Order: sequence, then structure tokens, then C-alpha cells
Amino acid sequence: MPEPDRLERQLAFIRELDKLKAVERRTILLDRSRRENSAEHSWHIAMMALLLSEHSDAERLDALRVLAMLLVHDVVEIDAGDTFCYDEAGMADKTVREGAAAERLFGLLPADQAAWFRALWEEFEAGETTEARFANALDRLQPMLHNYYTDGQSWNEYGVTHAMVIERNAPIASGSQALWDRIRAMVDDALSRGILKP
Amino acid sequence: MPEPDRLERQLAFIRELDKLKAVERRTILLDRSRRENSAEHSWHIAMMALLLSEHSDAERLDALRVLAMLLVHDVVEIDAGDTFCYDEAGMADKTVREGAAAERLFGLLPADQAAWFRALWEEFEAGETTEARFANALDRLQPMLHNYYTDGQSWNEYGVTHAMVIERNAPIASGSQALWDRIRAMVDDALSRGILKP
Repeated sequence: MPEPDRLERQLAFIRELDKLKAVERRTILLDRSRRENSAEHSWHIAMMALLLSEHSDAERLDALRVLAMLLVHDVVEIDAGDTFCYDEAGMADKTVREGAAAERLFGLLPADQAAWFRALWEEFEAGETTEARFANALDRLQPMLHNYYTDGQSWNEYGVTHAMVIERNAPIASGSQALWDRIRAMVDDALSRGILKP
Repeated sequence: MPEPDRLERQLAFIRELDKLKAVERRTILLDRSRRENSAEHSWHIAMMALLLSEHSDAERLDALRVLAMLLVHDVVEIDAGDTFCYDEAGMADKTVREGAAAERLFGLLPADQAAWFRALWEEFEAGETTEARFANALDRLQPMLHNYYTDGQSWNEYGVTHAMVIERNAPIASGSQALWDRIRAMVDDALSRGILKP
């Protein structure tokens, strides 16, 4: 029987989580009606994890840890906002802003769960374990697919070039060569159709 | 190495999933700015599963299956729409509408994954296994919390009474007595403050 205070702290955090639904990303929905928010993005990549883990190059993948990491990885954006991956200035102080956010947000939880979520988030950010590499591949793959399927709308809006897309997405290969091969073919196609600038 | 066709089928399904972000629920966000959609709701309850499983009354809970069930459980709404739990007419033909949706949507996937998702969805709907009971408890708990924290806004908008809230949420007890006790206290408080009608 957990102490009563635990449930109150968990509920306070669960209330706070609602704010992630208001954090806007640069990615647009496939019907182009609006930008995506970070909560629905997190759901989408968790679904991708369920479906695509067979394409991971790892001999063994802890599916539960991949899912937990993907569900948690954007929570810091409640305080720090979404940082556009092609925004150099934003990326420069991302670590500091998100570190403070992790401190406050995970600090709402009982200490053991705060430490667990912090560790999941840090593992994702470091991108070194098998699970983190695969989770990072999916986090890159999803906006890449959205750009491709919307004729490069947010690439063109923000002046993103072919070289930038390749550099950003190349780490997919360290999670899954099969997914990277498919993405390379999409990028080449996008370039040849003129929806991605050279 | 999975056959190439599998990845194409998986990507087609992943594209289709984007539509769940446009399925509107009756629940409103805690800042009352807009209604919640089913994709972000699914993320929110998956986070709740990570945090609240210690309150489950089960001796052992398969956390991965609970998460997978919660992530998948609303996908049928892409075709069938969200059915408001207090809408009797809607609830009457929900099974038929959602069955057809499951057929089409999961049918986009490779056969083994289609069968897996269908089984997860059916397990959730049946609500009989330990994991499904806990998943159903969370699916009820989240809108209950939103109603309580927004002074009963959608209860009052749709004429939902105390008896209806008790009936709808009582199954939480079969997943977690601790969560149900906390919810009962909230419902009593809502009634005494007049934000929920007798």
C-alpha cells in the first residue's frame, strides 16, 4: 500500500502533463490543417515503436524501456518549449533550458519516480544505449515522414535544405539500417521532385 | 530481415494514425482552451499507466501490455469517431461501428500485427483481464480528473448527474481500490461544491 502522499504528488504531475498538449511543434499534420503538438507527437512515435521494433538492428530491445522513453522524452518542453531541430541558436541553450525544466517537472513526483523519469529522459538525450538509439531514430523518422507526405511544407517554410535533412536524420542508421535506407530513398525522391531544396 | 512489403504496410498504417489527432472528445483541456483529441488523450493515459501501476490491486501486472492496450484502444475512432460515454444512442451501436473500423484500420498492417492490435483492442473492450481492468480504470480516471479540475464544465454542458458519474466510474474499483477511493472523495466534493448535479 503506497503512502497517501504519493498519489497526491502523482496527480499533481498528471495535471501538469496536460500542458504538453499546448506545446506546438514545427511539424504539421498530414491534412495540413494545423501544427502538431508534442503530446500527440509522443503518442504517434510510441505507436511507431510498437510496430517498427522488428526493424531495429539490435539483437535484443527492451520494448517497455523504448516506450517509456518516448512517452517521457518531450515532457521537459512544458517549461522549455519545443526547440526546432534546425534552429542553431535554440539548440545551443537547449540543454540548460531543458535541465531546469526536468528539475522542476520531475520534482513534482515522489523521489523514486522523479529519478526514474529523469534517467529515462537523460538516456534518451544521450542516445547511447540500444533503446535510446532506436527511440531517437523514431523521433527523427516521424517529422521526416510528415514533411515528405506534405510535399515538404515545413522544410520549405524554414529554408531547410537536402544537406540539413541528411545530417539531421543520419543517426536513424545507428538505430535501424532498414529504416534509414527507406528514408534515404524518400529524401532522394523529395529532391528530384523539387519539394526539398539542394 | 523482414520482407520489404511489411515496412510499406506499416508506413501506410502510421500515416493513417495521424487522423486520430483530429478526433475530438467531449473532455476539455485543463486550461479550458479547447477540447481534447483522442491522440493526446492516449498519450496522457499511457503516462498515467507508467506512474500509477503501483495502485493496481493485481499481484502482477504486465506493464508493456497495459501500455500497448492504452496506445491502441482509441485507434478505431479514426473511422468510428469518439462515442461520448453518457450518450446512450451512441453507445448502443458503438460495437458495430468500431468493429468495422478495426477491420479496415488494422487490416492495413501485416497480418500478424493486425491480429495483435485487434487482440489488444478486444482485450481492452472486454475488460476482463487484469491488464484490461487497470487500463479501463485509467481511461475513466483521466476524463474524471479533467471534469473535476475544470469545475465540472463538460458534466454541466451535457447534463451529467452524480448518479451517472458514479455508474460510469465504478469499474475503476475493479482495477484499483485506492484510485476509486480517491475518485469517490472527488465526486463527493464536486457534489458538495455544486459543480456536479445530484
